[in-house]
Amino acid sequence: MTQVHEQGYFTEENSAEVVAARNANASNERLRDCVNILVKHIHAAVKEMEPTQDEWFEAIMFLTRTGQTCNDWRQEFILLSDVTGVSMLVDAINNRKPSGASESTVLGPFHVEDAPELPMGADICLDSKGEPMLVRGRILDTKGSPIDSAKIDVWQANDEGFYDVQQKGIQPDFNLRGVFRTGPDGTYSFRAVKPKFYPIPDDGPVGQLLTRLGRHPYRPAHLHYIIEAEGFDRLVTHIFDPDDPYIHSDAVFGVKESLMAKFDLIEDPEAIRAAGFDRPFYLVEHDFVLASS
Amino acid sequence: MTQVHEQGYFTEENSAEVVAARNANASNERLRDCVNILVKHIHAAVKEMEPTQDEWFEAIMFLTRTGQTCNDWRQEFILLSDVTGVSMLVDAINNRKPSGASESTVLGPFHVEDAPELPMGADICLDSKGEPMLVRGRILDTKGSPIDSAKIDVWQANDEGFYDVQQKGIQPDFNLRGVFRTGPDGTYSFRAVKPKFYPIPDDGPVGQLLTRLGRHPYRPAHLHYIIEAEGFDRLVTHIFDPDDPYIHSDAVFGVKESLMAKFDLIEDPEAIRAAGFDRPFYLVEHDFVLASS
Repeated sequence: MTQVHEQGYFTEENSAEVVAARNANASNERLRDCVNILVKHIHAAVKEMEPTQDEWFEAIMFLTRTGQTCNDWRQEFILLSDVTGVSMLVDAINNRKPSGASESTVLGPFHVEDAPELPMGADICLDSKGEPMLVRGRILDTKGSPIDSAKIDVWQANDEGFYDVQQKGIQPDFNLRGVFRTGPDGTYSFRAVKPKFYPIPDDGPVGQLLTRLGRHPYRPAHLHYIIEAEGFDRLVTHIFDPDDPYIHSDAVFGVKESLMAKFDLIEDPEAIRAAGFDRPFYLVEHDFVLASS
Repeated sequence: MTQVHEQGYFTEENSAEVVAARNANASNERLRDCVNILVKHIHAAVKEMEPTQDEWFEAIMFLTRTGQTCNDWRQEFILLSDVTGVSMLVDAINNRKPSGASESTVLGPFHVEDAPELPMGADICLDSKGEPMLVRGRILDTKGSPIDSAKIDVWQANDEGFYDVQQKGIQPDFNLRGVFRTGPDGTYSFRAVKPKFYPIPDDGPVGQLLTRLGRHPYRPAHLHYIIEAEGFDRLVTHIFDPDDPYIHSDAVFGVKESLMAKFDLIEDPEAIRAAGFDRPFYLVEHDFVLASS
């Protein structure tokens, strides 16, 4: 408290320093440092915005509604973090990769822990809906060598843009989910259907904010991956369809140049037969490169 | 969307610029500017903190609990704004006063609109509890001339640190509240009891944060004022007891040097009799200076 007194009373000029001095006795130094950093930057933002009392109250009420929209299955503050690019920034900071390694992107809310482990080449689409797709490629290290026993956990939305967990009773359980394990050649392959773009939940305060900002709530079509192998960093990422109408305006900023895949429509009857399909299919060939841990 | 494409995809370096570019089509320019300023500073804070995914999730859950603690009579986000100095900063920005004018401080949550208008000298303490106090002074303009017909709305906590609205059924309605109007000489006076320090509501997430930061939840003893007169800026302020144990550590940073009053204990029998009391009382003499509007 002596320290606070020495700082003097709160003024517009010394505001953040006075608050930081008050936190000097925090037992948890990391918490104290983070609070002080946030206070410093929020005060700087307030000084730049110069909000009226009414505007600040509007912000308070927006945050209040955002908290009150959260429940066991809806996390509106994560959505707010997503649409303001903060989630992707936290992801980027925690996943700086060496040159040549595949880049990460956000996990998203639809991963499930207990998806079935399937043989290579299996079809993860359990309801035969949508346009067929064959996905294949290799799991490599940064020197280009194949990684044996890499675990590939993949999940995606269906042809209408819904995950199985959003349509319980409509889609089969574990539809469009699977876990695969590479052999010594590092290759992987599975069958699925071409995913579609979909909106993030937009019937709450964050959706209203997006509307007022002239933004749509859509994420471009993508496949989710978690790839793990002993001796390598865990990779949480997507691959995207570069022809998706929302590829340049992902509502949550998850797209990176290096995460573009190619979705080639294969119409040649021989190629269709060779791939085990009975009609044209999309071929997606994409390699992932893991960084050594 | 063209603009977004030109900005390129999201990276750690260009994160705030990419988000701002996405908000370019907002219909409300002020909202857009405020969101972009907040995004810029929050991203800067995240880059400085480098939170782990777990730490960021902890922050998300803190904000969620803060929103969920709010209801019709409890506003936990305002408390968060208060204990981080943001409320006082917004107050300071909106109440820059010319030299010589009395300074403002936060309104607080306990003002009521319909307090009774009373004659000068009236006792606003309706339950005779506490140490008697006489408050008097003048309402002046910045040239030192008295202001006629100034309206003085005053309210305070009782000798145990509670406002009437916090103790309905225990304190009389409108206890320690009153509205007074000056005459041509600009003087005011009323009787009350010496107020006591009190805690802000500390049984929620903000109280837990204060504890983890090694801080107490107390506000030093004070009297609230709203002073209005035609041709002058409305003044929302407090006066404080400089001998209060929490005067250097107000939980909401509301104290300013210029808002110190003197609480003189008057024990001289003649002075006691002249003031109309039957025992020692506190004399608080304080002038307020209004800025021309």
